[in-house]
Amino acid sequence: MHKGSLFIISGPSGAGKGTIYNRVIAATDMKKSISVTTRKPRPGEVEGVHYYFRTEEQYQQMIAAGEFLETAEVHQNYYGTPKAPVFEYLENGHDVLFDIDVNGAKSIKKKYPDAVGIFLMTPTWEILEQRLRDRNTETESSLKIRLSAARRELSQYPLFDYIVFNDVLDVAVHEVLSIIAAEKRKIKNNISAIKKLLEEN
Amino acid sequence: MHKGSLFIISGPSGAGKGTIYNRVIAATDMKKSISVTTRKPRPGEVEGVHYYFRTEEQYQQMIAAGEFLETAEVHQNYYGTPKAPVFEYLENGHDVLFDIDVNGAKSIKKKYPDAVGIFLMTPTWEILEQRLRDRNTETESSLKIRLSAARRELSQYPLFDYIVFNDVLDVAVHEVLSIIAAEKRKIKNNISAIKKLLEEN
Repeated sequence: MHKGSLFIISGPSGAGKGTIYNRVIAATDMKKSISVTTRKPRPGEVEGVHYYFRTEEQYQQMIAAGEFLETAEVHQNYYGTPKAPVFEYLENGHDVLFDIDVNGAKSIKKKYPDAVGIFLMTPTWEILEQRLRDRNTETESSLKIRLSAARRELSQYPLFDYIVFNDVLDVAVHEVLSIIAAEKRKIKNNISAIKKLLEEN
Repeated sequence: MHKGSLFIISGPSGAGKGTIYNRVIAATDMKKSISVTTRKPRPGEVEGVHYYFRTEEQYQQMIAAGEFLETAEVHQNYYGTPKAPVFEYLENGHDVLFDIDVNGAKSIKKKYPDAVGIFLMTPTWEILEQRLRDRNTETESSLKIRLSAARRELSQYPLFDYIVFNDVLDVAVHEVLSIIAAEKRKIKNNISAIKKLLEEN
């Protein structure tokens, strides 16, 4: 059986990663990667569905054992992507889709260079700012921080394979689905099928 | 303006190149490449629509002047792809789609390495043989020749970027359209848009 592929959707806050991620998961049989965190569960969050919840001690043991594809500390909590379930999906021929920030994407690409990185961006900075404002969760100063972070993130574009400009949502979703479909058709992902045909009489 | 991209659909006789080519042209605003030939026009064939018809002397002058992306002799007639209209389309931001045999694809890739090569194949040899038989144009010996040519053509797979197995026509068309959409989203085809965003305040 052919191995699955690992796809990463990344990009700045406000570009629409989460929305597009959920649309693509719903439209395909791709597997989600579930993160491990030391953060306390919020009401309604289910172990193994939203996160794997671990104590900080357990988390540090997982780091020491090399069990993460990437790990990061955000507001005194740890978040990380466990290797084992992802590699098991890939070995079983399933594609896996990540929604992760640019630093996380960089770590994953380092450990798994075959990962396909899709950078999601708004067509303009004005639209990015507007989308962040529309959330009503940002103060003026946090907005400025997010916008300057977005610029640093975009400047990391050479890490990625594709860029999708999220102007009209349906178009952006269609483009991400096209990228996934095209990757499955790459020669390098079909060598075994081609060789099998060439060996037949 | 960003340059257009050059796409090649190739593969053995019977894989369905012509049908898929026409479906993709109809579904997009891609430009066709019109070949030059020394063959006499058949009834209904229009100069500049189906072919550019030239005398053998004119054709040899075009070869000498380096005016072809590729040229080949088939049954005592010459067929070739003129460079000038293709490069003009690409410069003007249009994508160009070729339907060409594997040798022609190889020549084009050599002169224009950015060309995206899509190899079209049937899922099995039996289906290829059946499709050739269904045409009712092959003798047993010409069928054998075509099938052994198909095997030689498939063995050239490393020349190509993608392979599409034409089992269900609509699926194959969708896959070719996905490849074209995905290529437009490659980082390398969006450098100028990204740099423009990064230079804005």
